[in-house]
Amino acid sequence: MSRYAIGLDYGTNSCRSLLVDLDTGQELGSVVFPYPSGKLGILTDPSDPNVARQNPQDYLDGMVAIITGALEQARTSRPDFDAADVIGLGVDTTGSTPIPVDANGTPLALKPEFSGNLNAYVWLWKDHTASDEAARITALAAEIRPQYLARCGGIYSSEWWWSKLWRCRNVDEAVFNAAYSWVEHCDWIPAVLTGNEKPESIRRSICAAGHKAMFANEWGGLPDTEFLDKLDPALAGIRSRLYSSAWASDTRAGNLTAEWADKLGLKAGIPVAVGAFDAHMGAVGSGVEAGTLVKILGTSTCDITVLPNNVSLGDVPGVCGVVDGSVLPGHFGIEAGQSAVGDIFLWFVNHLVPDSYGATVNEKFIEMERRLAKLKPGETGLLALDWNNGNRTILVDVRLTGLILGQTLHTEAHEIYRALIEATAFGALTIINRMEEHGIHIDQVVNTGGLAVKNATLMQIYADILGRPLKVAASEQTCALGAALFGAVSGETLELGELQNRCCRMREVVYSPIPENQQVYAEIYSLYKTMHDAFGLPGVKSDLSGVMKDLIAIRQRQRG
Amino acid sequence: MSRYAIGLDYGTNSCRSLLVDLDTGQELGSVVFPYPSGKLGILTDPSDPNVARQNPQDYLDGMVAIITGALEQARTSRPDFDAADVIGLGVDTTGSTPIPVDANGTPLALKPEFSGNLNAYVWLWKDHTASDEAARITALAAEIRPQYLARCGGIYSSEWWWSKLWRCRNVDEAVFNAAYSWVEHCDWIPAVLTGNEKPESIRRSICAAGHKAMFANEWGGLPDTEFLDKLDPALAGIRSRLYSSAWASDTRAGNLTAEWADKLGLKAGIPVAVGAFDAHMGAVGSGVEAGTLVKILGTSTCDITVLPNNVSLGDVPGVCGVVDGSVLPGHFGIEAGQSAVGDIFLWFVNHLVPDSYGATVNEKFIEMERRLAKLKPGETGLLALDWNNGNRTILVDVRLTGLILGQTLHTEAHEIYRALIEATAFGALTIINRMEEHGIHIDQVVNTGGLAVKNATLMQIYADILGRPLKVAASEQTCALGAALFGAVSGETLELGELQNRCCRMREVVYSPIPENQQVYAEIYSLYKTMHDAFGLPGVKSDLSGVMKDLIAIRQRQRG
Repeated sequence: MSRYAIGLDYGTNSCRSLLVDLDTGQELGSVVFPYPSGKLGILTDPSDPNVARQNPQDYLDGMVAIITGALEQARTSRPDFDAADVIGLGVDTTGSTPIPVDANGTPLALKPEFSGNLNAYVWLWKDHTASDEAARITALAAEIRPQYLARCGGIYSSEWWWSKLWRCRNVDEAVFNAAYSWVEHCDWIPAVLTGNEKPESIRRSICAAGHKAMFANEWGGLPDTEFLDKLDPALAGIRSRLYSSAWASDTRAGNLTAEWADKLGLKAGIPVAVGAFDAHMGAVGSGVEAGTLVKILGTSTCDITVLPNNVSLGDVPGVCGVVDGSVLPGHFGIEAGQSAVGDIFLWFVNHLVPDSYGATVNEKFIEMERRLAKLKPGETGLLALDWNNGNRTILVDVRLTGLILGQTLHTEAHEIYRALIEATAFGALTIINRMEEHGIHIDQVVNTGGLAVKNATLMQIYADILGRPLKVAASEQTCALGAALFGAVSGETLELGELQNRCCRMREVVYSPIPENQQVYAEIYSLYKTMHDAFGLPGVKSDLSGVMKDLIAIRQRQRG
Repeated sequence: MSRYAIGLDYGTNSCRSLLVDLDTGQELGSVVFPYPSGKLGILTDPSDPNVARQNPQDYLDGMVAIITGALEQARTSRPDFDAADVIGLGVDTTGSTPIPVDANGTPLALKPEFSGNLNAYVWLWKDHTASDEAARITALAAEIRPQYLARCGGIYSSEWWWSKLWRCRNVDEAVFNAAYSWVEHCDWIPAVLTGNEKPESIRRSICAAGHKAMFANEWGGLPDTEFLDKLDPALAGIRSRLYSSAWASDTRAGNLTAEWADKLGLKAGIPVAVGAFDAHMGAVGSGVEAGTLVKILGTSTCDITVLPNNVSLGDVPGVCGVVDGSVLPGHFGIEAGQSAVGDIFLWFVNHLVPDSYGATVNEKFIEMERRLAKLKPGETGLLALDWNNGNRTILVDVRLTGLILGQTLHTEAHEIYRALIEATAFGALTIINRMEEHGIHIDQVVNTGGLAVKNATLMQIYADILGRPLKVAASEQTCALGAALFGAVSGETLELGELQNRCCRMREVVYSPIPENQQVYAEIYSLYKTMHDAFGLPGVKSDLSGVMKDLIAIRQRQRG
């Protein structure tokens, strides 16, 4: 008898499903549902570009579409497929993406009296309205609760839970007061599916709580009342209506209700795992384990690894989050990331690449890659800093910008593109080095996301710079795959590591460092690090007069 | 009775004439002659991109064409024009552009036995084959004759006289041995016109000698025999066949021979002025005087001013040359320059501007200027260093490269173009500041060259950054105009200052600094200077961690 699980991955513009055979790892169905509301699923405010909200109804409509669609695909590709053999459901979402709900757990956005009021809708992760609130939270924590900050990399973000709740209180008291509680998107979906929507009944994700809401068992859960009260008595007031415990995703949020089982065509009562954030599930779906760093290479990156939680691990300065159980049970989940990678390439191709490379963005990328692949490391003479969108890890500073140096009167666009690729790889190495300095060893890197699959030149440059073998996860839906695996293990009969071994396959290609390239890049990385520290670390005084000359010398040597 | 003079301006790809009415300043004729030899007049070697030679026959053919053509135009526009009223001829050329000649002063290139041997041709200023020789000259001078270097900015260039002579000796002994002497292009033309071609008879230009051949009366003319001997006994050997005195251009090289008068349609016996380099003549033609800096704004810039030579003036570190009489008689000529200005803009538009700005280079420039003109200072958040072709003044360092910082994911091409314009203006201000630190005050800037005429947005940015009124010379041929004025004064009946007052007109537009822009640019300039010193001065340790944040703060303020 076959056993299957379904993972649901709620992204920024769409949600998608993955139906996987737990014995073979075969993927039998996957459907995408673009959110119908707003612009590409995002509700915006023309008067404020920082606003990014979503309609929770899209999540529900999408759920039905992507699950029934995946079941349909499975029946087509495997005639003896039986939906009754789906033994678990898992869910991942973006985050921090909090939803204001009433005492029944119903999102205010779904109630007629709040229809059209964006503050009552879902506050999407990329909503940046709460930057003032974030700065004030960081300042107060630095003063009286440094331990809160140490765990989240030193700076509390406008994208996170408390910034958004407080922002709502500051701009729309009516909504804030009407909100009995708030629920993360990744907690709300399992709650709905299992009929545990009342805020007190919801099993909250440790991943969301630990990374974004400053939750830790060692200080009694959420930030204490005194701290919240100093921010705003209203936040202290809502604390008791939020949650006091949080759970890893190998535990179940509940069992599928008969009503939803009916709508979805699944068996009632199957376990639904506690939700988590997309990147964390993606790491699991990519086979994360101690010694393996999973990089989700997209417009930005999320870099995730784990360390057994019986090892002593202090704070890792500048690393966004270290949370016990947030990725794998029994392990610290360690999350880092780069605030822009693919976004930097897209910026460059959209704004600074002439049409002599091609008529479309895609043609330009292809032609640039063809030409840059012929260059040796250092041959461009260029060096860039990958900070066009600030630096998340390890500097945790949004007030940084991009930099390119080494240009002559002959520098061409594909050379700059190569320098930008290299810069993002140097940024990635800086993260790995910081982890290793604190006892988190990284032996290999598993990559997932569009860039990892499509851009072999980039991957080889990354291997040469990171100095470790680079693999690429086979699944194109690693987040949904991770969610499916948690759906399976939350039923308590399967072991996660075994499931990963069976289902988390790698593509055949492995990018291994080329020793002579590694050596040149080690030289250039030391220049990158000099620049990184000079522009990124206050109080560091640097002599930069050798940087341009060293790059010229390397260029001359490499051009032979 | 009207009096006229003709100036001849020998450029890199063509030569041109200007016939001017000395009483009214009216320009009555101007003809361009593109050199027919090689590629755009330059003889190149496919195996070595550093080679740039010219054919001296082009100069002679051009001379006839541009003088007879200008006379023809004058006759057309003024029916009573009489070529007999042309009272003087002046010449300017590129430099250092030495020509190997035999004992009669005939260029070896014009002798059948050397036909086709590029080493026997004219070594054009932009020939860069002699970089090793230049480095060795700099090293020896630094060791035993620091005074030689102090006068030419601290580093002897591969573009200059001794580097080229020595290079010839090192790569082609046959040519070197056949060369009885060497003559600068600007000395050879007057020598030909006046029949004084024998090397001993040629009146050499103090401008060429002082700026490029380390000639100064205070150390007995050319570098001493001991110094040359340590470089190469062959250089010491040729010293006595070069020259021991040098002359300013208000003196005559001789009188026009009957033979040339006949060929050209001019009166025999009229004075021909001692030649000089184009930029120096261009400064005179732009009305240079103490307190006025003339900027020749082209692919690179030449910045020239003068100071009465009864004022005590020490060496000005990093300024390429201070030579008594090289620009105006009785004045120190002070020459500085930026190694790339228009060239940086051309590089950018050719390699990094998408076709959404326009289909052609010109359309792209126009659209970028239209858009950048709408921005306030600091609104781009960008800062660049103008070193894509190294830094001539004040760092005198070719091993420097371009730099751009401040990019976000929204930075557009016209914003970068604006930052590049600003960077060249900051570079210009750094030169002026260095001059003022050494007692050379600059009250106003007169600009000439294509950028000054065509780009009003650039000129306003320059005015705001330089903090001085910017004027634009009226003549489109300021070099030839300066040469013509020297042709007139070398006849000894006219006073140069009076002629400048009459003939060196300014366009009506004057770009005045806008106080609020000046203030913002003062802030940004201090960041530029921090970057300039950090990357340009060995041993300077800088804290650059505020640079990006300060630019962001200025941007936010300026965007309001």
